[in-house]
Amino acid sequence: MKAVQVERVEASNTTANPAVNKGVSILDFILRIVAVIGTLASAIAMGTTNETLPFFTQFIQFRAQYSDLPSFTFFVIANSIVSVYLILSLFLSIYHIVRSESRVSRIALVFFDSASMALLTAGASAAAAIVYLAHKGNVRANWFAICQQFNTFCERISGALIGSFIAIVVFILLISMSAVAISRR
Amino acid sequence: MKAVQVERVEASNTTANPAVNKGVSILDFILRIVAVIGTLASAIAMGTTNETLPFFTQFIQFRAQYSDLPSFTFFVIANSIVSVYLILSLFLSIYHIVRSESRVSRIALVFFDSASMALLTAGASAAAAIVYLAHKGNVRANWFAICQQFNTFCERISGALIGSFIAIVVFILLISMSAVAISRR
Repeated sequence: MKAVQVERVEASNTTANPAVNKGVSILDFILRIVAVIGTLASAIAMGTTNETLPFFTQFIQFRAQYSDLPSFTFFVIANSIVSVYLILSLFLSIYHIVRSESRVSRIALVFFDSASMALLTAGASAAAAIVYLAHKGNVRANWFAICQQFNTFCERISGALIGSFIAIVVFILLISMSAVAISRR
Repeated sequence: MKAVQVERVEASNTTANPAVNKGVSILDFILRIVAVIGTLASAIAMGTTNETLPFFTQFIQFRAQYSDLPSFTFFVIANSIVSVYLILSLFLSIYHIVRSESRVSRIALVFFDSASMALLTAGASAAAAIVYLAHKGNVRANWFAICQQFNTFCERISGALIGSFIAIVVFILLISMSAVAISRR
């Protein structure tokens, strides 16, 4: 019952305010820049991490870098692809600021935004699962916590996740804002 | 230039066809049922897997189940939450079939759909990273492939991922379809 009422109140405002759409478009542009910074920082932080240990025993490895673990390679690739997509989408975002009534291009953005969000979340979450394992290890599977040896490496890979997770939240906002903008055209 | 043209062609069809929106709503309902089946099957397949080995040595574990690895526990929880959300959203989907012009409830669905997709992708991808490790192991980190011992367990956990990834694709479609429906109201 409540939903129906809200519906009717909203319906009367439908074509009320083109300025609102322009405001949403500008916020969209700013949020995209935040997401570009987040994903780019994540890709660079993970891609450049590298630790060489000063000592050597029979079992411990000399050197740790992102390409040692496939999940981290996927993380770097996913973040790079999404940041390139976001940079390209900035042009469409500017176009929406200028022409706030556009509709087809917004629907296309919603589709590509959701696909990019899925890719980014997959990369971030796969890396997070391995980072957790690196910190805690797993007794049942006989996997040891490698962070005991590779301190700096572990700090960097943990920090690299932050940018990605910020970008995921930004994507949820972007998709919802696009839906609002489409409805207000 | 092309985008502008498409825009104008589309603009003339805006209020043309309420039947299209009803069609989109029915497809939305069917896709949600597919996603419920996918996530529920994933949660059950992962949650009930259990393998006890017939032999015992100093290093090999007796028994493998999903709760041994935190990523698998997260996978089961994420799939359960999303399937409950999807079942609840079926009611809203039915409401959209009846009242195809509704708008606020569709925007709310877009928001919750994106958030659920992020949760589901995170769970599926974290589990996939660990499944990959269980199959292949990692020489650099001294993590051994546990699938050599736990065959049945590994087959089940690999299969359990399928339902989740189908549901992720369904979510991308659902969000895009909602955007189309909102624009056509």
